[in-house]
Amino acid sequence: MQKITVITSRENPAVKHYIRLRDRKKTRYDENLFVAEGLRIVRDALQYPFLVQQIFLTEPAFEKYAGMLEAESGQLFRIPEALGREMSDTEHTQGVFAVCRMPEQNLKLSPEGRYLVLCQVQDPGNMGMILRTCDALGTDAVLMTQCCDLYSPKVIRATMGSVFRVPVLRTDTPEELFSLLRQQQICSYASVPAASAVPLTECRFGHGCAVWIGNEGNGLPETVIHACQKAVTIPMKGGAESFNAAMAAGILTWEMMKSD
Amino acid sequence: MQKITVITSRENPAVKHYIRLRDRKKTRYDENLFVAEGLRIVRDALQYPFLVQQIFLTEPAFEKYAGMLEAESGQLFRIPEALGREMSDTEHTQGVFAVCRMPEQNLKLSPEGRYLVLCQVQDPGNMGMILRTCDALGTDAVLMTQCCDLYSPKVIRATMGSVFRVPVLRTDTPEELFSLLRQQQICSYASVPAASAVPLTECRFGHGCAVWIGNEGNGLPETVIHACQKAVTIPMKGGAESFNAAMAAGILTWEMMKSD
Repeated sequence: MQKITVITSRENPAVKHYIRLRDRKKTRYDENLFVAEGLRIVRDALQYPFLVQQIFLTEPAFEKYAGMLEAESGQLFRIPEALGREMSDTEHTQGVFAVCRMPEQNLKLSPEGRYLVLCQVQDPGNMGMILRTCDALGTDAVLMTQCCDLYSPKVIRATMGSVFRVPVLRTDTPEELFSLLRQQQICSYASVPAASAVPLTECRFGHGCAVWIGNEGNGLPETVIHACQKAVTIPMKGGAESFNAAMAAGILTWEMMKSD
Repeated sequence: MQKITVITSRENPAVKHYIRLRDRKKTRYDENLFVAEGLRIVRDALQYPFLVQQIFLTEPAFEKYAGMLEAESGQLFRIPEALGREMSDTEHTQGVFAVCRMPEQNLKLSPEGRYLVLCQVQDPGNMGMILRTCDALGTDAVLMTQCCDLYSPKVIRATMGSVFRVPVLRTDTPEELFSLLRQQQICSYASVPAASAVPLTECRFGHGCAVWIGNEGNGLPETVIHACQKAVTIPMKGGAESFNAAMAAGILTWEMMKSD
């Protein structure tokens, strides 16, 4: 970071731009930019060249963290503490904010790859936790369609930086994903609560597979279940009616990835 | 539910009592009572005799749900919609509230039992998700010490009713839990991020075991790790530094329970 600019007003165009990116999905996708808040996640972002376009630090954050947040390019803004509270999406802000570029969608699926597919997952906390888990377990990529916005501040925060590390492919429809998966002869597994599906304890995923996770309340659409080659279920013993979607995704991904 | 009482004032003692139980841990434990909100969770609670002491329904909720919420005992209050919004802990309330009795702590551990132990877990969402997962996977009980309050409204909501089904044992210190576990010759496993621990892929839990999960930021205290007979870790392949505590608990519990 070479250039340091001091901002004092809420009306500064860079601040207004940050807030628009924070609040408006349309702005994010029009500009292919998103915002990240917090020391740890901004440091994670700085590991990737050209990912961070702007950094904003409140005065106290500048004193404490400026040395840890050096980058080769981009702009650095110093802002009053009160302005940081306005920009923040959290209750207790650290005063560290960044505008980041969305990575290009140039992922190529591999016939040997192991993928998690999210279809209509709507809870930002779930999506963030799933990304973090897939990062830790080493999934080749996370594919997603018709989900909540990956680049919303809540998802970004819940990923704990994994959003920068896990390759992601987004499509408008499940059909586009099925088409890409079939081209590589990757076997799709629908995860369902039905007892008629293969119990996860008996499932051998091997390589070249994709596990589909559905919506928190409604699960996967029937059309998706039918388009999958197999259906898998996590056997339930107790009285709970279902798993949390992120938990189901985590247990299935664990089983998919552990058979190395 | 025999007796229906109409309440109109925020100053009604039953309403004030509900709000105290909602907000004050001390009141909850002085009286061994807690509150639950939402149609589904209150219906779950009504499956257990004597668990529900009072139900409050807003006028619209009374019209819609009173027929589904019949109980043999306890009081039923009808309240104005505005009062429901004050009692609610959520943004969009269904207008269904209950005061419930805490179950007695009379759990006996079994030498063949399989237990999850939570030590200093502080996030209510994590604790709720863990209870729900243990319910679904059929863990014999969840033991906990020095955690956030199991009976706080946020935990209760996140359990999705599992709080009524999973046996729980709470103690003030880890030492008390170790003493109970050792009496039954149950083997304690510390879950740690250290690569020196046994990888979960190589771990054979068998019966008579307890897996300890630690705090979200700091993991398990050193003293607890040393007091456990074994240490287990979920192997990480990607760039994430750690799993979310609830996710780690879920994956470990899945492995512990599946070897039936």
